[in-house]
Amino acid sequence: MFTLSLIGIGSGNPKHLTLQAIDALNACDVILIPSKGAGKDDLAGLRHEICAQVLRSDGPDIHEFTLPKRDAANPDYHAGVHDWHDAIAQVWLAEMQRTLPQGGRVGFLVWGDPSLYDSTLRIAERLQKVVTLTVDVVPGITSLQVLTAGHAIPLNTIGNPVTITTGRQLRDHGWPQDVDTIAVMLDGTCAFEVLRQHSDVHIWWTAYAGMPNERRIAGPLDQVCDRIIATRAEARAAHGWIMDIYLLRR
Amino acid sequence: MFTLSLIGIGSGNPKHLTLQAIDALNACDVILIPSKGAGKDDLAGLRHEICAQVLRSDGPDIHEFTLPKRDAANPDYHAGVHDWHDAIAQVWLAEMQRTLPQGGRVGFLVWGDPSLYDSTLRIAERLQKVVTLTVDVVPGITSLQVLTAGHAIPLNTIGNPVTITTGRQLRDHGWPQDVDTIAVMLDGTCAFEVLRQHSDVHIWWTAYAGMPNERRIAGPLDQVCDRIIATRAEARAAHGWIMDIYLLRR
Ligand SMILES: C[S@@+](CC[C@H](N)C(=O)[O-])C[C@H]1O[C@@H](n2cnc3c(N)ncnc32)[C@H](O)[C@@H]1O
Ligand SMILES: C[S@@+](CC[C@H](N)C(=O)[O-])C[C@H]1O[C@@H](n2cnc3c(N)ncnc32)[C@H](O)[C@@H]1O
Repeated sequence: MFTLSLIGIGSGNPKHLTLQAIDALNACDVILIPSKGAGKDDLAGLRHEICAQVLRSDGPDIHEFTLPKRDAANPDYHAGVHDWHDAIAQVWLAEMQRTLPQGGRVGFLVWGDPSLYDSTLRIAERLQKVVTLTVDVVPGITSLQVLTAGHAIPLNTIGNPVTITTGRQLRDHGWPQDVDTIAVMLDGTCAFEVLRQHSDVHIWWTAYAGMPNERRIAGPLDQVCDRIIATRAEARAAHGWIMDIYLLRR
Repeated sequence: MFTLSLIGIGSGNPKHLTLQAIDALNACDVILIPSKGAGKDDLAGLRHEICAQVLRSDGPDIHEFTLPKRDAANPDYHAGVHDWHDAIAQVWLAEMQRTLPQGGRVGFLVWGDPSLYDSTLRIAERLQKVVTLTVDVVPGITSLQVLTAGHAIPLNTIGNPVTITTGRQLRDHGWPQDVDTIAVMLDGTCAFEVLRQHSDVHIWWTAYAGMPNERRIAGPLDQVCDRIIATRAEARAAHGWIMDIYLLRR
């Protein structure tokens, strides 16, 4: 009855869009754009801009809807995320049934790539339990690739593994075993601080990757740690929100 | 004197190209396309096809050159790779100086993303020691993203880390510590076999990701292991070469 098209749009630069993503957007009957409210990092504006740039005039209808809030106060992180995904799934379904009562192809513009620390595939899974649904995924440029491209560095050292992890994991568990390189995402609290006494760690940090206000700092962690913390705090205060990502290598 | 533009082109589907990559290709004075010789997996044909599709008529000149071979017989893997990168750097420099004696912007179409198990950034680093060179990197869709998109699966489980590694690492060191998910690339010998007795491991496998002949198999590893090995051997025999990638989760 429905096809859900989860379309990676890259990480801030509308030019990250692939030709495949442009085709997939135009093939939709309806595109749903989530909004969190004014001044939030919902990037609804960027999604509208992308649609305006690439949709043909006979293309899909665009509908904006209000995204439920996650209960950040829930002390059980996983339970909180789970409940939040349930609530989003209900809203998606209601929007899909309202805008396409006969069914059809519904598109979502997914930040970065849909596989990477993103909830849309998990929400799609919930919908598949209550409605007949095909899920199509179109890959997009991740913030991790924009980080490495901006600094012109490889992700891995030759033939060696890399771990992608979160700020929370780094803070709670330290450097993961057996890898010389880690990429850290979803870090609200500069977890790299836990490694600042290590003189052999190099950091490459980027905020607002791919956007006009992109900021990059790189160097030995013990030398640039404080500068990143200060730059991050200033930028966050100036914009009202921040998204940043970094690579650590030793 | 030179600007080197390392442009990610995605992993087999010309529609993986981003708008940024198309702009970057058109901004070059010369595009260099490596060739390994007929019947090899050099994908020179696909690179030419991409150029034909997206370059403007007043765009860059295209030159094909012969890529030196890696000495696979060298028992020291790292030394072998190192020598090979030196040899490639020499050939790049010669081609750059021959095609652009006054200097200029030289483009390379890099498979997938330039950050991921790719040698072009390391070759660029060598060139920077002998010539004035600016390096620009344009991200591209990796084979890992085409794997997860094709199977419509997330890369990570909620809030958890992921390790990207090679077949050699998996065979020599087994499952890396502290992660529930690993993505394996550069595996010439079905290293997942070392885990076949584990009944709790799920595999998602894709060969020729993004290409017309894409093959996907997924399931509990103990149940699909033999089928993947057989499918891989057949496909490889039929095409003369294979590229495959997989995700393991427990
Ligand atoms: C919910 S995850 C989504 C990741 C996304 N799916 C991707 O492929 O990049 C959000 C995290 O991604 C990173 N991120 C996303 N976009 C970014 C950007 N433009 N600049 C820096 N970091 C970014 C940050 O670490 C942020 O906390
Ligand atoms: C030298 S690495 C280059 C990776 C590339 N830079 C990327 O971003 O995907 C080559 C390995 O990438 C994987 N690979 C690349 N293209 C692929 C494709 N189309 N299908 C499956 N695997 C692919 C395979 O594991 C292969 O051994």
